[in-house]
Amino acid sequence: MLSIPEIIRKKRDGEKLQQEEIIYFVQAVSRKALQEGQIGAMLMAIRLQGMEPDETLVLTQAMATSGRVLEWPGKWQGLLVDKHSTGGVGDKVSLSLAPALAACGCKVPMISGRGLGHTGGTLDKLESIPGFMVSQSPEQMKQILEQVGCCIVEQSSELVPADKVLYALRDVTATVDSLPLITGSILSKKAAENICALVLDVKFGSAALYPTLESAQQLAESLVCVGTQLGICTSAVLSKMDGPLGSRVGHSLEVLESLECLEGQGPGDLRELVTTLGGTLLWQCGRASSVSQGAARIAKALDNGSALRTFQAMLEAQGVEAKVARALCSEGQEERFQVLGQARAQEELVALSDGTVQQILGLPIARVIHGLGGGRSQKGQMINHRVGAEVLVSVGQKVRKGDPWIRIHYENPELGDAGRRELQEALILEDSEPFIPGSKVARTILPQGQWARADKD
Amino acid sequence: MLSIPEIIRKKRDGEKLQQEEIIYFVQAVSRKALQEGQIGAMLMAIRLQGMEPDETLVLTQAMATSGRVLEWPGKWQGLLVDKHSTGGVGDKVSLSLAPALAACGCKVPMISGRGLGHTGGTLDKLESIPGFMVSQSPEQMKQILEQVGCCIVEQSSELVPADKVLYALRDVTATVDSLPLITGSILSKKAAENICALVLDVKFGSAALYPTLESAQQLAESLVCVGTQLGICTSAVLSKMDGPLGSRVGHSLEVLESLECLEGQGPGDLRELVTTLGGTLLWQCGRASSVSQGAARIAKALDNGSALRTFQAMLEAQGVEAKVARALCSEGQEERFQVLGQARAQEELVALSDGTVQQILGLPIARVIHGLGGGRSQKGQMINHRVGAEVLVSVGQKVRKGDPWIRIHYENPELGDAGRRELQEALILEDSEPFIPGSKVARTILPQGQWARADKD
Repeated sequence: MLSIPEIIRKKRDGEKLQQEEIIYFVQAVSRKALQEGQIGAMLMAIRLQGMEPDETLVLTQAMATSGRVLEWPGKWQGLLVDKHSTGGVGDKVSLSLAPALAACGCKVPMISGRGLGHTGGTLDKLESIPGFMVSQSPEQMKQILEQVGCCIVEQSSELVPADKVLYALRDVTATVDSLPLITGSILSKKAAENICALVLDVKFGSAALYPTLESAQQLAESLVCVGTQLGICTSAVLSKMDGPLGSRVGHSLEVLESLECLEGQGPGDLRELVTTLGGTLLWQCGRASSVSQGAARIAKALDNGSALRTFQAMLEAQGVEAKVARALCSEGQEERFQVLGQARAQEELVALSDGTVQQILGLPIARVIHGLGGGRSQKGQMINHRVGAEVLVSVGQKVRKGDPWIRIHYENPELGDAGRRELQEALILEDSEPFIPGSKVARTILPQGQWARADKD
Repeated sequence: MLSIPEIIRKKRDGEKLQQEEIIYFVQAVSRKALQEGQIGAMLMAIRLQGMEPDETLVLTQAMATSGRVLEWPGKWQGLLVDKHSTGGVGDKVSLSLAPALAACGCKVPMISGRGLGHTGGTLDKLESIPGFMVSQSPEQMKQILEQVGCCIVEQSSELVPADKVLYALRDVTATVDSLPLITGSILSKKAAENICALVLDVKFGSAALYPTLESAQQLAESLVCVGTQLGICTSAVLSKMDGPLGSRVGHSLEVLESLECLEGQGPGDLRELVTTLGGTLLWQCGRASSVSQGAARIAKALDNGSALRTFQAMLEAQGVEAKVARALCSEGQEERFQVLGQARAQEELVALSDGTVQQILGLPIARVIHGLGGGRSQKGQMINHRVGAEVLVSVGQKVRKGDPWIRIHYENPELGDAGRRELQEALILEDSEPFIPGSKVARTILPQGQWARADKD
């Protein structure tokens, strides 16, 4: 007979768990049939002793089937795609990518999360748009995908209940950075979405969970391996995250920047990541003959307005009034600010010396915005969507002492000297010639057995 | 600022915890100011990464002071002693030792536990005596020590609340066998008793927590080291536990055997352990000039009836009617059975072949008695005090096929064939000459710096 203490003991002693033991544990977690202390002990045992790839696969499958699995019409077979990012400062990719993919004929049932700590959440960003409803039932999701092609929603309580319990506990038990637990958490949710292709944006760098390319690659490989075994065509893009993605950080400011991207404008690094991730997915599900052809199709959807019109339709389908969606998607910056609101005060900081911008560090900016009420320290906390920052310079640019380099939007609390000091630490200048920074995308891992096709590109 | 997840992370990564971090964790446990999952993760991190001796000391001190600490009159200084055993089948030492020590002038505020799994609990044994009250307030304990010299009570809810939480959780999280956690649990309770001398009976062998002498010695050394640093004069006796201690197992049967020991009779191994542990304590607190002189004083207290009279007085002080205590302590076996009750049915098993008794294994006997209702699988479960076993042969004795070797007392459920088969596995016979087994006590560890004095003995 299976017993939870005995299963914990086996993992504690570094033994490999049997399939039925992992399933028994995950089912007990979902049914709340064990003590929370036992879950904590098991998480720590997994964190310290690890899991073999086939244990991780069983863990992920057991989590994915711990609740309802979404079902789709048979005609969508091969069209259902999604993206997952490990998160970073200013990462607003989903807001442009989901509609661009839908505009290219895909179905994107994107389940997203909220922000905690220094990372912003896609759902919080969308909620800065008046009327936007993140809560949609599986039936409503199906209807929106039928009409629009994409939705961005919160995780329904029926989906992956085991992950809900484990995810919340990992945060407070120092067991977040465990390869099998991260893999299980990310992929169980995607498996429950019942998609056929998935691209992972795995960040590395000073503002990411993994500081080095090597550690990020290890996670990416685990995700691609387990994702593939789950029957999802999975690839991973390793992208650098030292500074913010794009030039705006903060909820409503990031919506504005996403709208620029959806108009074929906006920062180059954001557009590059959106087209790379989208292009990879189009190639994965066979709607492009190469990743670069796929990227070109995504770029076209951004440039010809079809992605923006899809975004507008998604807003309306998810509860935004037609005239509000229209004002956001068809009019100028002033009308957009009227819809989203604007923080009461703005302040520009200036460079304290001459030099060339080497780096703009994301973490100090994120921490200051967090302190100004634009972030969440505890689950359920209210946030001020209008608080944020606009970076006014870019890496490689020459600046002079006194040039403004960042604009902070704040209300209450006000920006104080401590915040100003911390922000100045984010601007790394060096006394050298200007240079043109390279791509943010360092490496792409494609699904196994499909390298040849990708290499032809 | 201290944070529980950060403290867990440090221990997870094998770092040494600061004094204030350990205290912060233990206080949070006592105040129930953290999630049970966090306690589970921390227990597993300690189990896998260990603690240095000074960390274990701080843990023990923090646990000891997590609740009330008992206070005693100044005139008892130097007289307050106690014993702790790691537990084993048939271990009834406390019932004779506490009154014998009190008869020698000591004050023994013994806080004992209940049985769970295959080990019996001293409190459960005493509760087979009608009227015996294990629940006594610190004030009542002081009064009983004043009048009688010893009491055996349950842990009051005011004492060591941190241990209550951790102890219960270790059982279900596979973190029982952790040196720092065992040390903290045992010694925090003894420190809260505010005693000056402590002897530990650390068992090794097939029916003990630690199978080998070496592993038991490691625990004993940790306990003596930390106990000494807590200001308690601490020693440890390493004693072998393969077969039952004495010849009776089961609650009321063990009370009967303890009464024999208190009359100067009973099994030799029980008397040896009682006099060794008691003699060590008398030497430790300066009431004997050597361990052997101390042992002789304990033996005298057993032989001259003073220990038995003290036991009788303790029973009365803890709620037993005077005539019941008198019948138990002054009359014959029949009157004792009338007081304690006797199981409805008895059955003797016979040896299945000729041979010399090499071993009588404790675990199979304990498991069968447990199955007959004489043990507890879950906290709070009712037990039948009358269920038990009498071993009728001893190690080294020659037996013939058909000789009875064990008598089982049972009621409902009845002893079935499965139980009979399991019991027969406990009798290990070999075809060799009879022999006289040696002492059960393998080694004694005395408090540091006092070896010379002990060696003179």
